[in-house]
Amino acid sequence: MPAEKEDRLIETVFARHSADGEQVLIGPGDDAAMLRCPPGEQLLITTDTLNEGVHFPAGTPAHAIGHRALAVSLSDLAAMAARPLWAVVTLSVPAVDAEWLRDFSDGLYSLADEIGVRIVGGDFVRGPLSITVTAHGSTRKAAVLRRGGGSEGDGIWVSGFLGDAAAGLEVIKHRLEGREVPGATRSSAEEALVRRFCYPQPRIELGAHLSGIASACMDLSDGLMMDLPRLLRHSQVQGRIAAEILPVSGALREFADRDDAYRLALAGGDDYELCFTVPPDNEHRLKSLPGEPELTRIGELHRGEGLVLTRGGKAWEPADSGFRHFW
Amino acid sequence: MPAEKEDRLIETVFARHSADGEQVLIGPGDDAAMLRCPPGEQLLITTDTLNEGVHFPAGTPAHAIGHRALAVSLSDLAAMAARPLWAVVTLSVPAVDAEWLRDFSDGLYSLADEIGVRIVGGDFVRGPLSITVTAHGSTRKAAVLRRGGGSEGDGIWVSGFLGDAAAGLEVIKHRLEGREVPGATRSSAEEALVRRFCYPQPRIELGAHLSGIASACMDLSDGLMMDLPRLLRHSQVQGRIAAEILPVSGALREFADRDDAYRLALAGGDDYELCFTVPPDNEHRLKSLPGEPELTRIGELHRGEGLVLTRGGKAWEPADSGFRHFW
Repeated sequence: MPAEKEDRLIETVFARHSADGEQVLIGPGDDAAMLRCPPGEQLLITTDTLNEGVHFPAGTPAHAIGHRALAVSLSDLAAMAARPLWAVVTLSVPAVDAEWLRDFSDGLYSLADEIGVRIVGGDFVRGPLSITVTAHGSTRKAAVLRRGGGSEGDGIWVSGFLGDAAAGLEVIKHRLEGREVPGATRSSAEEALVRRFCYPQPRIELGAHLSGIASACMDLSDGLMMDLPRLLRHSQVQGRIAAEILPVSGALREFADRDDAYRLALAGGDDYELCFTVPPDNEHRLKSLPGEPELTRIGELHRGEGLVLTRGGKAWEPADSGFRHFW
Repeated sequence: MPAEKEDRLIETVFARHSADGEQVLIGPGDDAAMLRCPPGEQLLITTDTLNEGVHFPAGTPAHAIGHRALAVSLSDLAAMAARPLWAVVTLSVPAVDAEWLRDFSDGLYSLADEIGVRIVGGDFVRGPLSITVTAHGSTRKAAVLRRGGGSEGDGIWVSGFLGDAAAGLEVIKHRLEGREVPGATRSSAEEALVRRFCYPQPRIELGAHLSGIASACMDLSDGLMMDLPRLLRHSQVQGRIAAEILPVSGALREFADRDDAYRLALAGGDDYELCFTVPPDNEHRLKSLPGEPELTRIGELHRGEGLVLTRGGKAWEPADSGFRHFW
């Protein structure tokens, strides 16, 4: 019976987690999932769509797509200092490929299980390859981090390294276009960069630690030059950052010359690191956080508006300033 | 600045509702929305993707797409007897067309405002035309309606008329393919059917009324022949229905001959009516409900499994039995 066949496929992808009688009262399989909100906390909701050919190249492994689709939404929860709870997932595929579905599902659920997020429902439809994850988390109202809240004098900080994912994407595209020399050794730097694109790590623990320390926070999805101005607008301040102190990984330095590394760190998207501001009085508290990921102070907030970028002490405009969705 | 231009576009589509300080503590524009769950109630979550060319034909008016995308998810909340609260919306479009976006947004928000749902966030990406709505509602745990719960002897009921939306879709396709005779008068029956496809009405009030009366409930999205077996499996019973007592509208009878009307009522999707089961002792309570939409008893539950369809008292299998997503 067609309905049964479809329902079984849906179960492969969306129903590895079932109701637990605690928070998940009704899991996948009914018209909607029923959840118990943690008492005394507020609910955080975020939704993101990833399209093949736009957010990841055709040919990206299904396992990475499953991981990445969930990671991108969890990263938004991290930026608000929320504890992840549940997610619903819609998957659009041009045709049914059981192996692809299992790999996708493995990638999705291994991150979900690592973070402790339950997949509570979904939709499975025919169409161009696309995934939408709506993630839910919770936090006390006073603990939430927002884009607004940064003040003149606060330092601007980022977690981890910038530009790796964009470099990894370039490597992947190069390979998919068949431009790789057959038999050539793949450098471990390239492998590390590819991994950073395919398997972004949502900074959930860091976000929770930053609550009460940071004055504003957001995650970096479109690249620093595109995202930081959003935090600045919400906080109504000017940001000044210096290109030469951006955290660039050893892998990126091996892969790209200095100019390209700056360009990727500034304009490359998909890192899903946190960008946050910290009042001077709170900076010492950052030292007590776990050493991983590394935190780097890349500039500070000033009175005014907009982002001022310097290199060698002079105002500087890189050639390419951000992942543009439409223009 | 690109980020600002994109952010302004996003505001057109996703930010007509802002935080209200009551339930919506943080609205669109931050990394996630922050909501207050109604105390003493459980949260219901459902998500649906609509793809152009699969769930609606290319050329469907943007206003109808906006309405329909939200209606489809609200219909799932109706089926669980939930009170709709909030929705997040992701919109994927191949290019930016400000007029199209405004029409889409008008359709989305006019239904949202009618029902009292707040759009609290979203994502706006480039890609093939596709919309995903994740809708949230709430209800007391004891009031929820599920697919399981139907018992031997319960009547099987549906709301409204079946097959109209599928007939409306046929009319739309006929017109879009340019097969309409130029200058021909469009019959009011055809207009009514088109409207039923473009503007489904989620049965929110009916769902709430059925709580405590119905033993099981679901909404009809893929067509009765595809959906009812799901309710039967969850309830572990057999369903027997008679084709000749299916509720068929005057418009559908004018549009189609009797065989086609049966086929559309059984196998046509997109009606978003409720299908529910009612124990004999509760049937009298249906009479006290508002007369709109009409409710029709189309059969009853028996011991066993599967769906048994009769016509003229004999077992009957129609030619086409449901909207198939993949096969």
